[in-house]
Amino acid sequence: MSTTPAPPSLWRKMLAETVGTGLLVAIVVGSGIAAQRLSPSDTGLQLLENALATAMGLAVLIVVLQPVSGAHLNPVVTIADRALGAPGNSKQVLGYVVAQCSGAVGGAVLANAMFSTPTTLSTTDRATPGHLLAEVVATAGLVLVIFALARTRRSHLVGPAVGAYIGAACWFTSSTSFANPAVTLGRVFTDTFAGIAPTSVGPYALAQLAGAGAGVGLVLMLFPGARKTVRS
Amino acid sequence: MSTTPAPPSLWRKMLAETVGTGLLVAIVVGSGIAAQRLSPSDTGLQLLENALATAMGLAVLIVVLQPVSGAHLNPVVTIADRALGAPGNSKQVLGYVVAQCSGAVGGAVLANAMFSTPTTLSTTDRATPGHLLAEVVATAGLVLVIFALARTRRSHLVGPAVGAYIGAACWFTSSTSFANPAVTLGRVFTDTFAGIAPTSVGPYALAQLAGAGAGVGLVLMLFPGARKTVRS
Amino acid sequence: MSTTPAPPSLWRKMLAETVGTGLLVAIVVGSGIAAQRLSPSDTGLQLLENALATAMGLAVLIVVLQPVSGAHLNPVVTIADRALGAPGNSKQVLGYVVAQCSGAVGGAVLANAMFSTPTTLSTTDRATPGHLLAEVVATAGLVLVIFALARTRRSHLVGPAVGAYIGAACWFTSSTSFANPAVTLGRVFTDTFAGIAPTSVGPYALAQLAGAGAGVGLVLMLFPGARKTVRS
Amino acid sequence: MSTTPAPPSLWRKMLAETVGTGLLVAIVVGSGIAAQRLSPSDTGLQLLENALATAMGLAVLIVVLQPVSGAHLNPVVTIADRALGAPGNSKQVLGYVVAQCSGAVGGAVLANAMFSTPTTLSTTDRATPGHLLAEVVATAGLVLVIFALARTRRSHLVGPAVGAYIGAACWFTSSTSFANPAVTLGRVFTDTFAGIAPTSVGPYALAQLAGAGAGVGLVLMLFPGARKTVRS
Repeated sequence: MSTTPAPPSLWRKMLAETVGTGLLVAIVVGSGIAAQRLSPSDTGLQLLENALATAMGLAVLIVVLQPVSGAHLNPVVTIADRALGAPGNSKQVLGYVVAQCSGAVGGAVLANAMFSTPTTLSTTDRATPGHLLAEVVATAGLVLVIFALARTRRSHLVGPAVGAYIGAACWFTSSTSFANPAVTLGRVFTDTFAGIAPTSVGPYALAQLAGAGAGVGLVLMLFPGARKTVRS
Repeated sequence: MSTTPAPPSLWRKMLAETVGTGLLVAIVVGSGIAAQRLSPSDTGLQLLENALATAMGLAVLIVVLQPVSGAHLNPVVTIADRALGAPGNSKQVLGYVVAQCSGAVGGAVLANAMFSTPTTLSTTDRATPGHLLAEVVATAGLVLVIFALARTRRSHLVGPAVGAYIGAACWFTSSTSFANPAVTLGRVFTDTFAGIAPTSVGPYALAQLAGAGAGVGLVLMLFPGARKTVRS
Repeated sequence: MSTTPAPPSLWRKMLAETVGTGLLVAIVVGSGIAAQRLSPSDTGLQLLENALATAMGLAVLIVVLQPVSGAHLNPVVTIADRALGAPGNSKQVLGYVVAQCSGAVGGAVLANAMFSTPTTLSTTDRATPGHLLAEVVATAGLVLVIFALARTRRSHLVGPAVGAYIGAACWFTSSTSFANPAVTLGRVFTDTFAGIAPTSVGPYALAQLAGAGAGVGLVLMLFPGARKTVRS
Repeated sequence: MSTTPAPPSLWRKMLAETVGTGLLVAIVVGSGIAAQRLSPSDTGLQLLENALATAMGLAVLIVVLQPVSGAHLNPVVTIADRALGAPGNSKQVLGYVVAQCSGAVGGAVLANAMFSTPTTLSTTDRATPGHLLAEVVATAGLVLVIFALARTRRSHLVGPAVGAYIGAACWFTSSTSFANPAVTLGRVFTDTFAGIAPTSVGPYALAQLAGAGAGVGLVLMLFPGARKTVRS
């Protein structure tokens, strides 16, 4: 997809990951606050508003930033990309993860500021067995979607496909599908609709890593021959 | 669409059909449970949430798995594909149907587990004359959409088109459009929003087969010259 | 777009227009009945459900049937197509309009049957000055969308564009955007959400024709040089 | 994208900008009035209806009018286009802005007429610090989306991407994302859901200009090498 003259530097890629993950968390948290305020009487309607905004926004962010950094916006995507054979070194992986986590926290602070809501730690405990199973399933599906497309030379479809997948996963998983350790971390910093208590972050991240592993396994079984990565 | 090095084996295709149909049922059942819990006061809002999640998720599953197995995810699609001239033998048809039905049951169990809901037989009787007519119409339309696109060399549009079609058919048919015997079977194993009583499965499957026959007839009348199948 | 071996005969085109307009009216009427029954307490939610089902279903119908008949599904599109220079004769225009109107009535009857609702004449008077202005605007916009794309060699986008346009027009026009004399006629035959009283059909059709004229004028001013038609 | 025989004249481009911005405001204002009337009991549902109609309608308008004028429909896009190196002179920029503002006011009048609502000045004060920050963010994101795509030779994706972006931004920004000085001006002329008081226009326009500046900065940092503009 990269049609810009020179390959982007790691710093430029990290900027893309920071901006992208930041806007993603701003979308999730901000639309959650708006939904909670405007539709107080039906939690389902709140989730519908939150899920549609997230699906549309995430699809656009990936399409826009893909030529710069691959638009991972998610540490488990960066790690799965390496596990599936993408070129790069540990420095690049670390840079991506730092950029994603910094952006995620900044995005939550930005959303809080737009809605004049204080930035405080969430008090919403979410780590139940059902939710953790849901995070495994959600993350496995996410990894399958991204790398199935990358390995069949259809990376230009990753944006709309991931947007639609997450829009569905908000509903079909009991956890509303975080599926992203950086976004999970960012969502700690808002005590609103999309927030998650600090104590739930560890279990969620572990479930997401397990799901990414399962997703990589599915990719290798279903698309064994290819070496294409999310970047190409 | 197949750009992987070697043509996938029947076992790999069956794995794709199992995973795909399983995730499809998990999406339908899981989003139904979430909708029922979160929007208890408006059945229409529940169906809207369920329909949008299904439309988005189904579109992605087809796009992702099409290069492996054609992403039928539905016995009547496999049968119509053969009836319209796709290569293959009875062993392959049987393998697909077994994979689809196994996946469907597994998907219901998975959805129940994510939502900490017991896996029990549904008690929702659905087989009324209006609903059976609706299943005929829904399945005829589904077959028309898929094979019209395949016969005009636009198989890459099957995913979004089928997703949008099913999203509409959830509303314009009185049965909310099952249109898939494997998914109908899977939905027996949950006594929630998307469930269907075992006694309704036979009539629904017969209506779906009749609809598939009508759909094949429409395809032959409207697109007579072509031999393209859903796989190509 | 036509990739079938031989150009379709007029009879095959008329079959496509009948099936397509019939399913379109079945979608509009059927989803309206479902919405009315399932969301009785909020008319807006009913329209949202009806509009989303219509947008998704209409987009798919156009994409699917375009290679056969051009998927006009609407007499004013057929007439505007001729006015803008499409080849063909009066017999073809008449055949299309007859096919569209027959299909539309059949689609209403089919929707009523699926929902076990009697086929009776609607009692919903709709012809107010504001609604007639809305029909002029809605139809002008529809004609602009279709022929702007056709004249810039982007007919493959007509399906999703018209689906999205009508989805928006259900909301931004006060009439909920009929914009189609055949569909208006079909909607006479159901006394449900989407119905329209027989006495409103004439004024609506005249407003739609006026809107089509305005739309053709806009197309000629904005896209003067091209001769491409909706079929090509 | 321009496939018409001769490059369109400035007058034809201005007509496209007038019609496009006019229909955009008619969509925003009209769907807001319909939502307010039909869903009186839930403000969130009103915004959902308004946001989905706007997302779908805006995407179509851009796709349709892009070959004529680039479909800016927004003064800050016209200005950012020049700032990022598009050819043209001050006369063209002025012509675009005049066309956009005229169309925007006309669109509000048209929407009011369709809904038999008087054209009066809005009484809805909107300029709070949180909302102004939201306008900065919303406009920066809009400019990033448009010019990232233009600079990577994907201008054909601007329509669906901007539609989806604005659909999300209606929710994730506290201001519901005006992000367009011409549309902000047009929305002064309706005292309904989408209205904005005259006294809020200045602060909103300044915030939008600041956001456009931030967006241009992001574009230059993330996509430095390219010179492609929104028109090409």
